[in-house]
Amino acid sequence: MSPGRFIALEGGEGAGKSTQARMLAQALQDRGLDVVVTREPGGTPGAEAIRALLLHGVAGDEGEGWNPRAEALLFAAARSDHAHRLIRPALARGAWVVCDRYLDSSRAYQGGGGGMSDADILLLHRIGSEGLLPDLTLLVEVAPGEAIARLARRDSGASDRIGGRDAAYHARVAGAFSAFADAEGGRFARIDGNGDPAATHALVLAAVAHLLP
Amino acid sequence: MSPGRFIALEGGEGAGKSTQARMLAQALQDRGLDVVVTREPGGTPGAEAIRALLLHGVAGDEGEGWNPRAEALLFAAARSDHAHRLIRPALARGAWVVCDRYLDSSRAYQGGGGGMSDADILLLHRIGSEGLLPDLTLLVEVAPGEAIARLARRDSGASDRIGGRDAAYHARVAGAFSAFADAEGGRFARIDGNGDPAATHALVLAAVAHLLP
Repeated sequence: MSPGRFIALEGGEGAGKSTQARMLAQALQDRGLDVVVTREPGGTPGAEAIRALLLHGVAGDEGEGWNPRAEALLFAAARSDHAHRLIRPALARGAWVVCDRYLDSSRAYQGGGGGMSDADILLLHRIGSEGLLPDLTLLVEVAPGEAIARLARRDSGASDRIGGRDAAYHARVAGAFSAFADAEGGRFARIDGNGDPAATHALVLAAVAHLLP
Repeated sequence: MSPGRFIALEGGEGAGKSTQARMLAQALQDRGLDVVVTREPGGTPGAEAIRALLLHGVAGDEGEGWNPRAEALLFAAARSDHAHRLIRPALARGAWVVCDRYLDSSRAYQGGGGGMSDADILLLHRIGSEGLLPDLTLLVEVAPGEAIARLARRDSGASDRIGGRDAAYHARVAGAFSAFADAEGGRFARIDGNGDPAATHALVLAAVAHLLP
């Protein structure tokens, strides 16, 4: 049995991560691999229930939403359930796991965007998920104007409670992602996501090629 | 303005904490104090939503429930919201906060009962709630047989997902509470809860007397 591989796609809103996750999963399946495509926050019934609290708020609570500390704990709790019940069992049976967002989104959003320290986000990940890291993290980067144009074309209309935060927040998020990829080059591959989906997919495939059996 | 005071009641299932919290709050109100009586997990809309996930499970999830790490993160997230939006603002205006369960329940249940390290539970509390501690923690203790008899008399019937765990789990919880009170005597008062509610209430009032204005 070839080993399971864990690939995360990261980046800001409108970078094309979900599309690229689906295209990568299909390409891997076409090679005969066992592939699980999943997302965060979510991926298991428990984590999806936490996702609803995070992105759509709580009935009866018309206030300011979760404080950054509670938000970071909820993301870590969702990731704990996801890692424990879906990702680790899939890797153990030799599957490839393709995950749309993972730990680095918590570091970029609750850390870079929300002001939590990176050390505290990493502590929550150590406690919640025993520090499980992807084999490879694909950071899909697009120019800010391109991301805004894509988001404007989405059918879904209203953004969620985190996607809808202001431009300064999202600029801090993008800066944080870039800094992680610079500092931890061995774990990251930077993907230029400004082209069309097929062009970006070719870059993704080239980045994962060295992991293929 | 006299300072706000934060009193937590702790102990196992059937110790009488909720009854004693209500009786203490009434006695403090009768003295003209501004009193907030609350509970954990819960106390705010966000924390009550997390409570429902913890105690009643998730639709579509017929599995083993939350793993101990996710459970500890969810309790810490609920506490973060509760401390940020209810407890700290109440203390800041000079109110007394009487809380049915707080941090030491996480230490006893997810730590002593569930096997998480006490250091990790305390780290989650530092990250989530900036380490906010009660001025006084009342540990209400009853003999195991008395607790079982009281639980059998409750109307509610079916216990929740944590209360319904086995006797060995609850024995570890009781042992952990006792060890905390031994080790941190200055923050705890041990209350003999084997008597009737009025007798226990008299012991509670004696324990808080030194904090009264």
